[in-house]
Amino acid sequence: MYRVDLNCDMGESFGVYRIGNDEDILNYVTSANIACGFHAGDPSTMRRTVHMALEKGVSIGAHPGLPDLIGFGRRNMAITPEEAYDLIVYQVGALYAFVKAAGGKMQHVKPHGALYNMAAKDQALSEAIAKAVYDIDPTLVLFGLAGSELIKAGERVGLKTANEVFADRTYQQDGSLTPRREPNALINNEQEAIRQVIRMVKEGKVRSQQGVDVNIQADTICIHGDGPHALTFAKKIREDLTESGIVVQSIRQ
Amino acid sequence: MYRVDLNCDMGESFGVYRIGNDEDILNYVTSANIACGFHAGDPSTMRRTVHMALEKGVSIGAHPGLPDLIGFGRRNMAITPEEAYDLIVYQVGALYAFVKAAGGKMQHVKPHGALYNMAAKDQALSEAIAKAVYDIDPTLVLFGLAGSELIKAGERVGLKTANEVFADRTYQQDGSLTPRREPNALINNEQEAIRQVIRMVKEGKVRSQQGVDVNIQADTICIHGDGPHALTFAKKIREDLTESGIVVQSIRQ
Amino acid sequence: MYRVDLNCDMGESFGVYRIGNDEDILNYVTSANIACGFHAGDPSTMRRTVHMALEKGVSIGAHPGLPDLIGFGRRNMAITPEEAYDLIVYQVGALYAFVKAAGGKMQHVKPHGALYNMAAKDQALSEAIAKAVYDIDPTLVLFGLAGSELIKAGERVGLKTANEVFADRTYQQDGSLTPRREPNALINNEQEAIRQVIRMVKEGKVRSQQGVDVNIQADTICIHGDGPHALTFAKKIREDLTESGIVVQSIRQ
Amino acid sequence: MYRVDLNCDMGESFGVYRIGNDEDILNYVTSANIACGFHAGDPSTMRRTVHMALEKGVSIGAHPGLPDLIGFGRRNMAITPEEAYDLIVYQVGALYAFVKAAGGKMQHVKPHGALYNMAAKDQALSEAIAKAVYDIDPTLVLFGLAGSELIKAGERVGLKTANEVFADRTYQQDGSLTPRREPNALINNEQEAIRQVIRMVKEGKVRSQQGVDVNIQADTICIHGDGPHALTFAKKIREDLTESGIVVQSIRQ
Repeated sequence: MYRVDLNCDMGESFGVYRIGNDEDILNYVTSANIACGFHAGDPSTMRRTVHMALEKGVSIGAHPGLPDLIGFGRRNMAITPEEAYDLIVYQVGALYAFVKAAGGKMQHVKPHGALYNMAAKDQALSEAIAKAVYDIDPTLVLFGLAGSELIKAGERVGLKTANEVFADRTYQQDGSLTPRREPNALINNEQEAIRQVIRMVKEGKVRSQQGVDVNIQADTICIHGDGPHALTFAKKIREDLTESGIVVQSIRQ
Repeated sequence: MYRVDLNCDMGESFGVYRIGNDEDILNYVTSANIACGFHAGDPSTMRRTVHMALEKGVSIGAHPGLPDLIGFGRRNMAITPEEAYDLIVYQVGALYAFVKAAGGKMQHVKPHGALYNMAAKDQALSEAIAKAVYDIDPTLVLFGLAGSELIKAGERVGLKTANEVFADRTYQQDGSLTPRREPNALINNEQEAIRQVIRMVKEGKVRSQQGVDVNIQADTICIHGDGPHALTFAKKIREDLTESGIVVQSIRQ
Repeated sequence: MYRVDLNCDMGESFGVYRIGNDEDILNYVTSANIACGFHAGDPSTMRRTVHMALEKGVSIGAHPGLPDLIGFGRRNMAITPEEAYDLIVYQVGALYAFVKAAGGKMQHVKPHGALYNMAAKDQALSEAIAKAVYDIDPTLVLFGLAGSELIKAGERVGLKTANEVFADRTYQQDGSLTPRREPNALINNEQEAIRQVIRMVKEGKVRSQQGVDVNIQADTICIHGDGPHALTFAKKIREDLTESGIVVQSIRQ
Repeated sequence: MYRVDLNCDMGESFGVYRIGNDEDILNYVTSANIACGFHAGDPSTMRRTVHMALEKGVSIGAHPGLPDLIGFGRRNMAITPEEAYDLIVYQVGALYAFVKAAGGKMQHVKPHGALYNMAAKDQALSEAIAKAVYDIDPTLVLFGLAGSELIKAGERVGLKTANEVFADRTYQQDGSLTPRREPNALINNEQEAIRQVIRMVKEGKVRSQQGVDVNIQADTICIHGDGPHALTFAKKIREDLTESGIVVQSIRQ
């Protein structure tokens, strides 16, 4: 049986500022990565998003980021592994409390933006993040870029991990994502994006930009919650995955 | 047998900024109220302070404040009860994770500064705070001004509470603290301050500024961690309480 | 000749967060109040908004607020007059530099949200704000609620002032706005709102909720930049004012 | 005639947090670099520091940093040149207003910490910073590491520049500072430090760690305002410079 998780970043509103169609997108995904106040999100948004996810039966994860609200956590910052440990414990702890207060149980942690990308390649940073997650709750699942240093660190520390793939991104022959600044980084054709994902789940392979197949493990697929086509794409990818015989369910189920 | 807890605010450093003699003051107090990043403190300071408290066997509490770092959480803000609930869950959750990651167990929650003072008189705000603490962990102890709305709210919600008194402040005949802006608000004579505290613990009474005795319950005494005489006063009050036959121990013991 | 200024708050986006239709609304207003980074806005948004206003020939003002991004500067905070002075100098200075760097000249300052409302009634706070504006540049115009303490303080300090009225709000017989929490606080009928404004400009009177006329000076009218009908209302009020023989132009012209 | 400026970072307190001996150190330096609220400082601290510098006749400069209060602006962040332009205009504008409100005139701008170090090597970033300073006021002097990209960019843009040297740091044969993580990065012997500085001013040379002399232009010397020996060193370096026939005066004099 093939199975895969469908995750989406959410809870990224802040104060009066609104981003995303969280309530609608929750109808299609199986895991929600909820921002924790450093790159996006605020205490009230966190509470509301946790409640919505619980009502819809979607598994909840923390989505901690760098302390850079103006940059939405997308600008690299030279933090030490110790600082990474501390900001993960802080943010995950904050969301953990909202989930617990609402009667739920947190499933996973997925770093956001620049922290995610830096951790994918940096062993010391990854180990600090993985250790922080383990120390908070060793049953948490660590989400990271498929095959990345973060996944390896999670496994070394003793965490269950989930290799994440992207429906709309192309890959290099070393298994890394084609950087966004390069042409062909994005797959704009929806059908093609979904075909790539289904192949990753069923065959464990993706055709790289260099024309050769690369092995890749697809435990969870990241889809976007904003943009004009986010909802229709979410609905379609879920339907197509299901039709192709893949069970779409959260990592913990 | 008489007993009382001795608490002190700490972990109020921020980044390169240092406040307080946390490491030394921990030798004398039985409960530490650790700042959670909104009015003071940062993730790394929180981790370090939690570790120090655990090493010294001092019980740990969260010390959440208003989101006002420049004002050190001392300026009243017109927040709604719902916003208070959310910022308590967020901050207490963050510290809770540091305590858990370090192998400890959080004992209590004590709001800081303007939030503490506003909650002392505002029933709706107090109930929101008490509910937040209960929802995070119903075994937590809620610290509040002796006889205040916050203590009453904690009891209604089902929390264990600790009535807090101040060694160096004078009281009004309605049991409230003399406002700082008034003359005679502070007791500058150390011996007098300690005599007042001992009487509060043993007799449950304090002589008000109006000259009449007022009933007061003293479960925990707040002392200050900074200032030139903080350490010597901490040492002295602990010795004098013990000599007078009062057992100084944390609320949970 | 009757004349009035039409102003709108803008530049309230923050990082990736977008609010308002600034570019479009600039086609109809004569003065733009640009957020300065404390309650909304960020350096890049400030620069972009200043450039847009200059291109469209709209006069520029600073719109400083309380340091409360999560609350959008709408929550009262107990700041001292000295703190108010300092946060006005800081924020107005920051925007002033963007205007100067772009080759423009700042016209006015209008406090935002809770700071505006607190200043309307608080003499000491108003004087600190007026003094700050004067100290930065004595040719700046101070915008404040018509007839408020802020207007009086501006005049005492020696600033040119602009009495602000609201098209969509009702008034009390003492000239104050009907608080938003009360019924009939808002005028939902556009035609009625415009009629009220025209009468304020031409006759200097407004019919209060108590049924009696109140004297009011209308130098500038505040309209909203967001909401579904903001643009059509902006267009309509400008047309109707012009048709009724009122010249719509900025305060400095 | 030999002359040199003596500068010191200050105004780095924040809210209740205190750093530095600003009032005392102002007796010895000729230029003060005042923090602008992003990496340190706050509006009230800025006002107070500006007043102190004016009273003591010390020239005032803005000391803008990265938006990283927890990291004190010392952690590299991947900002774009456009973002650098914007955060320079914002921060310098804010301080400019305090100086103007107090009746003074700003002399210079010196980027702080990671922004200073990044700008020393990055041409695009340096040009954005230099352009921002020029656009605010083309008579401002740009302080940067002696011989760095920032100095070159300042000159290209048309600004007066000041090459900064460090009394207590050693140099490499390419004229760069020995990185702090390497041994021998710091000169701990005060007499040696002062000898190095005097030679830089008089001969335009410094002996590098590789044993060869390197050309260096010393327009301004950076000394530290905190640390136990800051005051005595400030006094001594000023006396020794003067005794050796070097006039210590600010850049603008």
